[in-house]
Amino acid sequence: MKKVLKAYLPAGFKANGVACGLKRSGKPDLALLYSEYPALASAKFTTNSIIAAPLIVSKEYLKSNKAIRAVLVNSGNANCFTGKGGIKDAQASAGYAALELKVPKKSVLVNSTGIIGKRLDIAKIKKAIPELVSGLSCAGIQKAEKAIMTTDTFSKELTLSLKIGAKTVNICGIAKGAGMIAPDMATMLCFIMTDAKITKQALDKSLSAAVDKSFNCISVDGCMSTNDTVLVLANGKAGNKIISGGKNQKDFSKALELICLELAKMVVKDAEGATKFIQIDVAQAKNFHEARKAALNIANSALFKTAVFGENPNFGRVAAAVGASGLKINENQLKINLGSLKGKQVKLTVSLSQGKASATVYTSDLTPGYIKINAEYN
Amino acid sequence: MKKVLKAYLPAGFKANGVACGLKRSGKPDLALLYSEYPALASAKFTTNSIIAAPLIVSKEYLKSNKAIRAVLVNSGNANCFTGKGGIKDAQASAGYAALELKVPKKSVLVNSTGIIGKRLDIAKIKKAIPELVSGLSCAGIQKAEKAIMTTDTFSKELTLSLKIGAKTVNICGIAKGAGMIAPDMATMLCFIMTDAKITKQALDKSLSAAVDKSFNCISVDGCMSTNDTVLVLANGKAGNKIISGGKNQKDFSKALELICLELAKMVVKDAEGATKFIQIDVAQAKNFHEARKAALNIANSALFKTAVFGENPNFGRVAAAVGASGLKINENQLKINLGSLKGKQVKLTVSLSQGKASATVYTSDLTPGYIKINAEYN
Repeated sequence: MKKVLKAYLPAGFKANGVACGLKRSGKPDLALLYSEYPALASAKFTTNSIIAAPLIVSKEYLKSNKAIRAVLVNSGNANCFTGKGGIKDAQASAGYAALELKVPKKSVLVNSTGIIGKRLDIAKIKKAIPELVSGLSCAGIQKAEKAIMTTDTFSKELTLSLKIGAKTVNICGIAKGAGMIAPDMATMLCFIMTDAKITKQALDKSLSAAVDKSFNCISVDGCMSTNDTVLVLANGKAGNKIISGGKNQKDFSKALELICLELAKMVVKDAEGATKFIQIDVAQAKNFHEARKAALNIANSALFKTAVFGENPNFGRVAAAVGASGLKINENQLKINLGSLKGKQVKLTVSLSQGKASATVYTSDLTPGYIKINAEYN
Repeated sequence: MKKVLKAYLPAGFKANGVACGLKRSGKPDLALLYSEYPALASAKFTTNSIIAAPLIVSKEYLKSNKAIRAVLVNSGNANCFTGKGGIKDAQASAGYAALELKVPKKSVLVNSTGIIGKRLDIAKIKKAIPELVSGLSCAGIQKAEKAIMTTDTFSKELTLSLKIGAKTVNICGIAKGAGMIAPDMATMLCFIMTDAKITKQALDKSLSAAVDKSFNCISVDGCMSTNDTVLVLANGKAGNKIISGGKNQKDFSKALELICLELAKMVVKDAEGATKFIQIDVAQAKNFHEARKAALNIANSALFKTAVFGENPNFGRVAAAVGASGLKINENQLKINLGSLKGKQVKLTVSLSQGKASATVYTSDLTPGYIKINAEYN
């Protein structure tokens, strides 16, 4: 497997990003990801019961339409908690892009990120669509990455290539996210494009497994977003023997999980106000879910996160967080290795002495910088 | 009902507080609450599965012994995550106090608050016990209050008197707590003394109801402590007709709930680093538990709490927090009234349009001050 820390679009994909005026800063805020050929799609959305309008629309399109051609994404406005008008805005945006791209309306998915509760200014989006479409290119993925950012300080991108039989398959992922990051995803958008030929069932299965071990293993502030999305488009242009179980699917799954995990870790590294990247390994649990539960409870503990910020090796707060996770555990079973808190990378190992399963969760420290960003953001 | 914002011990109770050297600051850190007569006791403890040693010991004493005479409380050290040695320390401390007070060993309960994971220096406690016992007095309750404080900036006390038949019954409560405050209690100790004559069953029932609407409705940082305790001692010295159901119990319950609620609100007002006291009313819920769940999810949202700190009326974060609570709700049902965020008292009203139940939860904003206190605390 070859790994490149940059986005290179697989065969048959193009992208672009422009500034349409949704962000007051004038920075890029509208991105388009386009497949020249009908692509299979698999997606995971937020489990928040308040769901943003574009997700409602995209879910419907994914259900009624098996060939996806593009994804239109805006930043600067989440188009969430915006009622029926918000749904219409999302549909209209998709419609404008589809018209300009000359593809079926429901083959364009939509996504948004930014402030919640404000109607989207779709006149601005409509106006920018011709430029957005005419500028589509392979190199445009770098522009698209910038256009989906909110409080992110760097763009998150990764490309993998692997052999499926004699053919090379490419997988390219981009993501945004820095706050409102909790397990069960986050204000986190991730778009993955691959030229792999794969069955819908295999793609769904690979994505579920990958998300479970990556985006569902990170937390910045325990706040679950209304717009979380991980979407994979697979257009089959690599010409490989179709992936459907067996060794090929294992290899593809492994690559997809690696893309998701690396992007998830980038999100944590870019966490709002963070000064430390924290890895929490919980070992000797009864099963993966219990291990992850304990790890996430530590990751979401404001007291643990402030202790790490202060380089204050307060392992009692770790014990209290594990005990509060709902797991049945007694203190004699609990082994905590907090190590040094100096430096930018911190590792915590917790052993539960209950079994053989383990989980790793990534989080950041809680700092005055996080508060400043979120007290002022609007 | 008469309410006084100060602690006055009911008939038959005495108290004291001294500095025994557990706190490096030299401030008072050892308190004794004493009943001259055997008292009934009812208690609620943390639901954290890592439980501090003194709670394990007190639970056992409460089970095996129906007549309680005293409670020994230290601050500066939580005696938690301290293994079998911690249990022995707790038993020994209780034993020293019982010996000096000349009461049965298991009639003295113990409690601790402070840092987790360090053994208690019981030589210091042993040495201070004679002075602690000889100084017991009615006015000593003010000294006891100071000796149970950790990061608290003011002592929390309240006394109520009510008529039960022709007799006046007094209830006096003191509490400590400012951080590691979550529902299912908090690093929160509350001791309530009453001269009421009441059956064990009635006392238990009244306490459960009171805690559910008070200490289980506050949150500072969502961190559940290992030492949480609410304990009521009732010595019967008011000479009232024994309370056992009916109007008398209703009146007593109402008073107990008021004591618990006022003390709980004082804990939130003293929240570490807080600049705002936030009341969250959730109305039109299916039942109290769903209303409280929604309210607590808002109260525990770092994004909501930083928004309030920044006086940033971001109601989208409220919607996202309600949606993440696990309640089935759609956005058309959700009405949010955020009001003004200026001033020290902030009120948020959320209506779910699903039923007639409501709940009120109290919390504080999340500030750089909270981070400073907890980054440096040890």
